[in-house]
Amino acid sequence: MSYHKNLTIGLFGFGVVGEGLYSILKQTPSLKARVKKICIKHPDKKRNAPSELFTTDKNELLDDPEINVIVEVINETEAAFDIVTTALRNGKDVVSSSKKMLAENMPALLALQRSTKLALLYEAAACASIPIIRNLEEYYDNDLVQSVKAIANGTTNFILTKMFEDKLDFKQALLLAQQAGFAETDPTLDIEGYDALNKWTILLNHSYGIVERPENIVFTGIQNINQNDAAVAREKHYEIKLVAQAKKLKNGGVAAFVLPQFVNQQDQLAFVKNEYNGVVIESGFSDKQFFYGKGAGSFPTGSAVLSDISALRYDYHYEYKKLYHHQENQLTHDFFLKVYLSYDNGVYIPKEKFEWIEEWHADLKRNYLIGVLAFSELKSDQWWKENNISMILAPEPIIEDVEIRKLKKKSLELAGITL
Amino acid sequence: MSYHKNLTIGLFGFGVVGEGLYSILKQTPSLKARVKKICIKHPDKKRNAPSELFTTDKNELLDDPEINVIVEVINETEAAFDIVTTALRNGKDVVSSSKKMLAENMPALLALQRSTKLALLYEAAACASIPIIRNLEEYYDNDLVQSVKAIANGTTNFILTKMFEDKLDFKQALLLAQQAGFAETDPTLDIEGYDALNKWTILLNHSYGIVERPENIVFTGIQNINQNDAAVAREKHYEIKLVAQAKKLKNGGVAAFVLPQFVNQQDQLAFVKNEYNGVVIESGFSDKQFFYGKGAGSFPTGSAVLSDISALRYDYHYEYKKLYHHQENQLTHDFFLKVYLSYDNGVYIPKEKFEWIEEWHADLKRNYLIGVLAFSELKSDQWWKENNISMILAPEPIIEDVEIRKLKKKSLELAGITL
Repeated sequence: MSYHKNLTIGLFGFGVVGEGLYSILKQTPSLKARVKKICIKHPDKKRNAPSELFTTDKNELLDDPEINVIVEVINETEAAFDIVTTALRNGKDVVSSSKKMLAENMPALLALQRSTKLALLYEAAACASIPIIRNLEEYYDNDLVQSVKAIANGTTNFILTKMFEDKLDFKQALLLAQQAGFAETDPTLDIEGYDALNKWTILLNHSYGIVERPENIVFTGIQNINQNDAAVAREKHYEIKLVAQAKKLKNGGVAAFVLPQFVNQQDQLAFVKNEYNGVVIESGFSDKQFFYGKGAGSFPTGSAVLSDISALRYDYHYEYKKLYHHQENQLTHDFFLKVYLSYDNGVYIPKEKFEWIEEWHADLKRNYLIGVLAFSELKSDQWWKENNISMILAPEPIIEDVEIRKLKKKSLELAGITL
Repeated sequence: MSYHKNLTIGLFGFGVVGEGLYSILKQTPSLKARVKKICIKHPDKKRNAPSELFTTDKNELLDDPEINVIVEVINETEAAFDIVTTALRNGKDVVSSSKKMLAENMPALLALQRSTKLALLYEAAACASIPIIRNLEEYYDNDLVQSVKAIANGTTNFILTKMFEDKLDFKQALLLAQQAGFAETDPTLDIEGYDALNKWTILLNHSYGIVERPENIVFTGIQNINQNDAAVAREKHYEIKLVAQAKKLKNGGVAAFVLPQFVNQQDQLAFVKNEYNGVVIESGFSDKQFFYGKGAGSFPTGSAVLSDISALRYDYHYEYKKLYHHQENQLTHDFFLKVYLSYDNGVYIPKEKFEWIEEWHADLKRNYLIGVLAFSELKSDQWWKENNISMILAPEPIIEDVEIRKLKKKSLELAGITL
């Protein structure tokens, strides 16, 4: 019905995703997108594609004037940045799945997109098969996003599900995730929250136009969560999820962090089990929407890359409207969080930093408290990640600064203390 | 970042959706889309907008050369068809939310889009706030859709939820839906499945490129479902949902129908409660995805209309790739369905039409059987909708023709009969 560019693709990487993509493209002749050359690191590995397609020289792709699209699905941040920026400078549209590279280099990549007027698409970099970037760009482009919550890392969600449902301990669950192929041999990036953080850095831009360095966002993973925490969650009819979230507050700022959280069983996020991802968007006009799908794996990732390739045929590019066209949003630290903290030794808990503490518990197995902390306490220090302290947010964790006095007074009155 | 058309809108309809949309547009100056004129039927009603905006003469909108977009959110099928076709012929892009009009006139509307090269967008017509058409068009444009299942009608889902969770009988639940504003005073269109059917007719086109008249699709609503059916569902750990579904079969055809179904509690559709809608897409590459959101109401519908308006600024139009560019798909009737049938009087059940019956039940309250029927039996006759027979599909209802012999043999063997 309308004019489409012919795409000639230079592909970087032929691991599970690259090979999956190649196989999808072969099965999809209607796309009329041809892989002309594939750049790999190890020429001696046996590959499921004709050998003449492969090269180890990146410039065979980047300098080929016939190649108009570079697709990059490698796993090395610096190499990916080099490939993506060179490709844009050489006049090629780019599809990338390197979340860490994207999260850490967004200002430079935004500038390059503006100066070259070329497209850099990366749907696969955030929740893979869930078309979340495209929906934030297109469907929520003029809607006020009130909050976004996501389970953005499948490995940690798989482990939490197994700890919760099958009562496995953390190490057993991790082993099972590795056996199932979800977790890397070195699972630190997943387990300690870095992967979810990188995705969240990317989505903050498309949700609120906030471009922030990952290290400036408060986060942790699930490394300190244990079976006793899972038991508390069960008692309270909660589940534990690693939730990346952002919320527009009454003070005009945006609260954003990636932290474990208790979620009610009725919450959409509680529905997201095992290796799946899920995103809940609350907006001014369309109420609450929930997107659910696989966040990793060769075909889900390949399918997201494919949808980007397909979009390049009609010159689609992200407009970053929230960043360029809307009122500026900024991160705020002026709010409070209700948290559950479990610990081995109470000396590591800085009780004086709490606004108030509303529940104490100690038994032979575990000690925990539930209290309210200023978010800035988490921002300025790491005590809550250390000494085997496990911090999990309450189900509705954010208390805005305009509410804190009233709530504190009420809470102390309940404890018999009058201010 | 890129060129956008200025939009000058002629709006038809100022009910809850029209007024909601007008209020959204006022709150969204960044859109630079102006409502120039609003056509209404009753000039004497008090309206929350300046009186000079209103007219009762449709031609003031349709003949105004400055108006380049017609948005139509009225509730009359014939008038909507007249407005939409005239607008396209007069060179205007169109956004419509009239699902019945769209479902019944798709061939003519497709032809008009091709000849005028103008856009007709209607995201609000199917599951309102869920961007399902856009995702089918863009994200699944080159992916093989294996199956699509949807809860597409919020009123019936609300009633089923109340019957199931609160054990209300059908009439009480309907009354509650009417009090909550979900159901119309005459709820027949919702209750008997017509509304879900119209949406399904539209989505069949975007999922499989199948353009079919609604009356050719097998459907019913929830009018015959009663509290005893809900009790059976609870015993079997199922829930009851009105499911619109389509599935690509091994014989190359597509099975499609809108029928009540037992769903497992682990099924994504079981998660969809009350007035919410949900869509599950299974595809070759991206595995299983689930979209969830509000399917009706002024803001969800207004938000879908708004996203269409916004897309018109960059000349977006549906490409109908599955229809125009892919291998042709056709509906098939060559398959079998496993069904649960409850009834007052067994004389109305044509037992000879069943391939086999694998469960019989009779007690003081209710009689039911579970058996397998050729789909063509439902297509050619209405007995299964009549005489207070309640038919509900089994959780995995479709049995393909290539499997039926083997399964029948096995089933009869279990019953001690050898073929």
